Amino acid sequence: MSNNPSFVLRAVEDVAYEERPVPETVADTEVLVAIKKTGICGSDVHYLVHGRIGDFIVKDPMVLGHESAGVITKVGSKVKHVKVGDRVAVEPGSTCRVCDACKSGRYNLCPDIIFAATPPYDGTLTRYYRVLGDLTYPLPENLSLEDGAMMEPLSVGVHSVSNLGNFRFGQSIAVFGCGPVGLLCMAVAKALGAKRIIAADIVPSRLDFAKTYVGAIPYQPLSMNKDESRPDYSRRNAENMKKTLGIDDRGTNAIDLVIDASGAEVSIQTGLYVVGTGGIMVQVGMGNPNIQIDMAQLMTKEVALKGSFRYTQGDYPQAIALVSQGKIDLKPLVTHRYKFDEAIVAFQATRSGKSDDGKAVIKAIISGPDVSPQDL
Amino acid sequence: MSNNPSFVLRAVEDVAYEERPVPETVADTEVLVAIKKTGICGSDVHYLVHGRIGDFIVKDPMVLGHESAGVITKVGSKVKHVKVGDRVAVEPGSTCRVCDACKSGRYNLCPDIIFAATPPYDGTLTRYYRVLGDLTYPLPENLSLEDGAMMEPLSVGVHSVSNLGNFRFGQSIAVFGCGPVGLLCMAVAKALGAKRIIAADIVPSRLDFAKTYVGAIPYQPLSMNKDESRPDYSRRNAENMKKTLGIDDRGTNAIDLVIDASGAEVSIQTGLYVVGTGGIMVQVGMGNPNIQIDMAQLMTKEVALKGSFRYTQGDYPQAIALVSQGKIDLKPLVTHRYKFDEAIVAFQATRSGKSDDGKAVIKAIISGPDVSPQDL
Amino acid sequence: MSNNPSFVLRAVEDVAYEERPVPETVADTEVLVAIKKTGICGSDVHYLVHGRIGDFIVKDPMVLGHESAGVITKVGSKVKHVKVGDRVAVEPGSTCRVCDACKSGRYNLCPDIIFAATPPYDGTLTRYYRVLGDLTYPLPENLSLEDGAMMEPLSVGVHSVSNLGNFRFGQSIAVFGCGPVGLLCMAVAKALGAKRIIAADIVPSRLDFAKTYVGAIPYQPLSMNKDESRPDYSRRNAENMKKTLGIDDRGTNAIDLVIDASGAEVSIQTGLYVVGTGGIMVQVGMGNPNIQIDMAQLMTKEVALKGSFRYTQGDYPQAIALVSQGKIDLKPLVTHRYKFDEAIVAFQATRSGKSDDGKAVIKAIISGPDVSPQDL
Amino acid sequence: MSNNPSFVLRAVEDVAYEERPVPETVADTEVLVAIKKTGICGSDVHYLVHGRIGDFIVKDPMVLGHESAGVITKVGSKVKHVKVGDRVAVEPGSTCRVCDACKSGRYNLCPDIIFAATPPYDGTLTRYYRVLGDLTYPLPENLSLEDGAMMEPLSVGVHSVSNLGNFRFGQSIAVFGCGPVGLLCMAVAKALGAKRIIAADIVPSRLDFAKTYVGAIPYQPLSMNKDESRPDYSRRNAENMKKTLGIDDRGTNAIDLVIDASGAEVSIQTGLYVVGTGGIMVQVGMGNPNIQIDMAQLMTKEVALKGSFRYTQGDYPQAIALVSQGKIDLKPLVTHRYKFDEAIVAFQATRSGKSDDGKAVIKAIISGPDVSPQDL
Repeated sequence: MSNNPSFVLRAVEDVAYEERPVPETVADTEVLVAIKKTGICGSDVHYLVHGRIGDFIVKDPMVLGHESAGVITKVGSKVKHVKVGDRVAVEPGSTCRVCDACKSGRYNLCPDIIFAATPPYDGTLTRYYRVLGDLTYPLPENLSLEDGAMMEPLSVGVHSVSNLGNFRFGQSIAVFGCGPVGLLCMAVAKALGAKRIIAADIVPSRLDFAKTYVGAIPYQPLSMNKDESRPDYSRRNAENMKKTLGIDDRGTNAIDLVIDASGAEVSIQTGLYVVGTGGIMVQVGMGNPNIQIDMAQLMTKEVALKGSFRYTQGDYPQAIALVSQGKIDLKPLVTHRYKFDEAIVAFQATRSGKSDDGKAVIKAIISGPDVSPQDL
Repeated sequence: MSNNPSFVLRAVEDVAYEERPVPETVADTEVLVAIKKTGICGSDVHYLVHGRIGDFIVKDPMVLGHESAGVITKVGSKVKHVKVGDRVAVEPGSTCRVCDACKSGRYNLCPDIIFAATPPYDGTLTRYYRVLGDLTYPLPENLSLEDGAMMEPLSVGVHSVSNLGNFRFGQSIAVFGCGPVGLLCMAVAKALGAKRIIAADIVPSRLDFAKTYVGAIPYQPLSMNKDESRPDYSRRNAENMKKTLGIDDRGTNAIDLVIDASGAEVSIQTGLYVVGTGGIMVQVGMGNPNIQIDMAQLMTKEVALKGSFRYTQGDYPQAIALVSQGKIDLKPLVTHRYKFDEAIVAFQATRSGKSDDGKAVIKAIISGPDVSPQDL
Repeated sequence: MSNNPSFVLRAVEDVAYEERPVPETVADTEVLVAIKKTGICGSDVHYLVHGRIGDFIVKDPMVLGHESAGVITKVGSKVKHVKVGDRVAVEPGSTCRVCDACKSGRYNLCPDIIFAATPPYDGTLTRYYRVLGDLTYPLPENLSLEDGAMMEPLSVGVHSVSNLGNFRFGQSIAVFGCGPVGLLCMAVAKALGAKRIIAADIVPSRLDFAKTYVGAIPYQPLSMNKDESRPDYSRRNAENMKKTLGIDDRGTNAIDLVIDASGAEVSIQTGLYVVGTGGIMVQVGMGNPNIQIDMAQLMTKEVALKGSFRYTQGDYPQAIALVSQGKIDLKPLVTHRYKFDEAIVAFQATRSGKSDDGKAVIKAIISGPDVSPQDL
Repeated sequence: MSNNPSFVLRAVEDVAYEERPVPETVADTEVLVAIKKTGICGSDVHYLVHGRIGDFIVKDPMVLGHESAGVITKVGSKVKHVKVGDRVAVEPGSTCRVCDACKSGRYNLCPDIIFAATPPYDGTLTRYYRVLGDLTYPLPENLSLEDGAMMEPLSVGVHSVSNLGNFRFGQSIAVFGCGPVGLLCMAVAKALGAKRIIAADIVPSRLDFAKTYVGAIPYQPLSMNKDESRPDYSRRNAENMKKTLGIDDRGTNAIDLVIDASGAEVSIQTGLYVVGTGGIMVQVGMGNPNIQIDMAQLMTKEVALKGSFRYTQGDYPQAIALVSQGKIDLKPLVTHRYKFDEAIVAFQATRSGKSDDGKAVIKAIISGPDVSPQDL
């Protein structure tokens, strides 16, 4: 393929390949990356299906994709830490560098962030992607380009568990939702020395995977009774969960950190009942925003309920270190691999949760135009 | 009065004076305090009216009161920091000293806490009260015994604003609810160097008081439209509040800390819309526990929503220091003063929010049996 | 005056006015500032006298000055928070924005910092100074341009006391050295609610000033005996200080934070004996680098001894807030005012510590070419 | 053996077995422990040889030993977490529970601490030891009693590396001194995910051990030249160390945390040159207290130099978790095992650093009177 082929969302349910111009120059602080591997994220699918996420609305054609790794092909004069040919993970958010958020280490909260595949900004499902040099992280030799693409969702896990969750060796965690982000949160907790990892999900096969992947203790939520309110259900479900798994409010059997990676109201409610006294609960799963919580739980246990948004300073390096040191294995999560011109099939599989052969999708990765799915 | 007269809640709406035995001895770690001043708290009234708060149920007669100051009359052999005759504020929660919460500086979360006037434990509306010595704090000369009684609710403010809220010089705060705790949160914020204090309440006279007391910028919430859902109302109310008062999500006009001291769902919802990006929201007001919040706000602004429960290590000393250094004046808050045998009248006034003469109650203080309301 | 007159250090003890070109353009992220007021710092004098500070050596002519305020005359297209005509304080260090230090909120540790009047970079004693826009802070109406110039040393105090020292309301501080930085550290501590401020200096008049300025408790160190080692002297001096002023190792009479703003070995040693158990000691005074300390003090009291270097994210805004809210009055510190063409005289006075009329110099401020010392 | 045989230090170089009375009762908060394993610490030897450590002077006969594990034989009525027969590690410091240090989570700084084998308090080299119940930690099944005795020095490592050093996954550490505490600091760092562990010691065999034990990169310090000052030597040594091992001041090759477990002045000086910009240095090795440091290094790199003293809330549980989860193997450190009546031989071996057969001592453990060295 010549030129700069890109996978573009034109409108709801309308995607196509377009030939975009190859960036001819890079600024002195930028690099050009030949994109080799890109994971599909739920948000990509959401834009495809709904054309919007909250206030972010796709008005003009937009290149999809933001979980990418590639090879450096051009380097701006001020960029010193990479050179042409380096394999890198690409952090997809460029920030202003001058606002309080940027200067205080919480650049994920920069109001002027330019984030790949968040409208109106183009994403990374393209042949060549131009980006600020410091947003490219060289991959250690023992990391594949696929690992590099996975650094984006893994950084979400690092941000939620290590940064906001302040998770420490010997603590216990419960994760609601066993999708890619939930699994990566568990993987981070395990790598940081979790004493006990509890995984909750309504799909048995996902629980099985969590059990195999990180040794999680599975919890399958109770069924909701007819005419039972969600809070009543959640309280009953939490009591069952605590009794079944031997969870206390305090002490060695308490849950120090709850991660909700599901976005489901009953999961969030259950999580707040399950988290230990003085504990932390981090909300990373995005669902229906209107959630009823039991404020008495929050108060009497003095819980901190923290919203988690992307990742910030230090998260990418820690993600790379965790994999490079062998504490996290990302390979089992990559269940599906596609060629660049199969992107539509890849999106369909991610959207339905399984490929045509019935195999459940955890993460589908699309190769760049110049590589094959067999080249890792 | 001889012996140890005590104001006892026997059952719902049934209070009476009882003669309890004077503690004859104190353990080596304890002191005996002649109680001189006791403030009435909303929780005292709640037990009177409902006989319970959540899972805490009054089953046996219980002495009321937990906001007290008095004079030391006996000192255990191991207590070195006070002597007979010292005026002290009494912290009303005795903890186990051996659990993780106690040993890590969060003793408010001790599961075995013995808290005055929380069933089944007797309170401080009594002549003599026996308590662990280290829970009595000597009052500097420039603090009255009434100030001493106010240290309890002020410590709630210190805990919420300074400890959990991590409020720093030059930050801005919005407080929902202008009752005693809300006002004390504002007072703490002012003393710590608040740039802007915004007070929200539906009662105009309470807003006026907040304005006079700490220079708060008053905000009177909009009226809710018929058929408008609470979330819709709260979003509209928040937009109005931000526009009217010039509140931004970020930068110098942002709100760093929101305190909800109302417990009202619409206040909590509004607060979450108003708090700045990366900000903290502390829930200290107890109301209906089932609260619907906008989780998208929590996530995209990466807000930490923290439950606040009583106070812990360092809060009482900071409360005393704030008043002693003249940064907080508690006198304006004490609107009503009663003799010990007028306790029932005092409770009625606090319950209805105003005394028979129509004067609004902020804080009513009941003197001990041996002192008159004129002795401060 | 036409052109861009600048006060230049050509070599040791060799200064002169040079006509430098006025910057004709500013980049989109930059502004041009007409410098109106510049304070003289000890480091400016040090370069004049010694031509170097540590590894920073003046090899080429360098404009002096880095404590400045002025008026915006040009604004780059991306700079939104200031406009032409705004009065601003100028932060003198431009950083790279891409290194770990910059992105984590500790930009003072950026290896590529371009700091005014630190060789080889020109300073601010000039008519027009070009700088990154976000390094200019608009002055509230109640701050003078002189106040604006003082924001630089005040930010050093904020960084040492508030940021590194984590100073909290009701704590006690001891400051060694009553020069401008020491006094500003005291002023910050007072504004943040210091319970007790102790000032130590060998010059009685400086102690008197500290007493008047912030109500500091003065301590005049003992004289050193002949044949007494410095550690022996310091231990004796500390014991005298603790006894005389009623300082304990723990509890309400303990010193929570010690600031050494002297750089003198005996002060540092004394400070380490005086700081309370579990306390913090911050080193901000630069002197002979070889300092002998008593490591047993550091260990058994578990003290954190922190080096302080300039200031970082949040320090300038807090400095401005402290003065704007009336908690710090900078005027008493500005003892001497000079016209632009009197810079040499100003340096001489700062160097000798007093002006020709014998008046002690705390801070001398040089006006820009276009203003007179009477214009504040 | 009947009664309560104890190994007593009577005076300098004068030890003997004494029959002490068996504690007949325990208070309701206490337990009685049959001591089974006790490690010998450098401080035990120091008391034997010098009769004092700093201000702690042995005036009356004192039982030695404070690194112990045993089996519960009596339980006070309020102690709920252990029962008779439980194997426990014994934390040797009883604190007051009422001072600020105790209540804020830094109980190691309690002024009234009663610490085993610190004069005038008896230690644990005895048959039965009475102690506060919450200072006994049940050993998980996969921990031996020897492991239990090692929890004391391991907690020193946890306190220094995890608590004070705030060591995080992916960071790098340099440890000066490869004795038991140094090795345990390395083990903690490795377990927490150290990227690079550098060990410095003048004894090659100790470096070899560190290399084998935790994969440390060994550094053998240069020899000091004749007439070279210690600071000059240390600077030269540090430059060699940085060059040889590829250590930078910043970035991925920087040292985030330096631990000095040697107490030697040249090690401390070298460590301060080697620690990265913005890094932390923790002093845990006790030596000659008068140490000359380069304050310019501390300031320009904004290093925090922290004294470390014993351990506090959370350190013992984390130590147990690290071993129980298999992240630290303590067995290789126990090089010598002795019967209770061989205590004098054990002290001689620890003192000389090797046993009669020439084998280097890392940790010697003395069994209780009722067990043999073969019973682990």
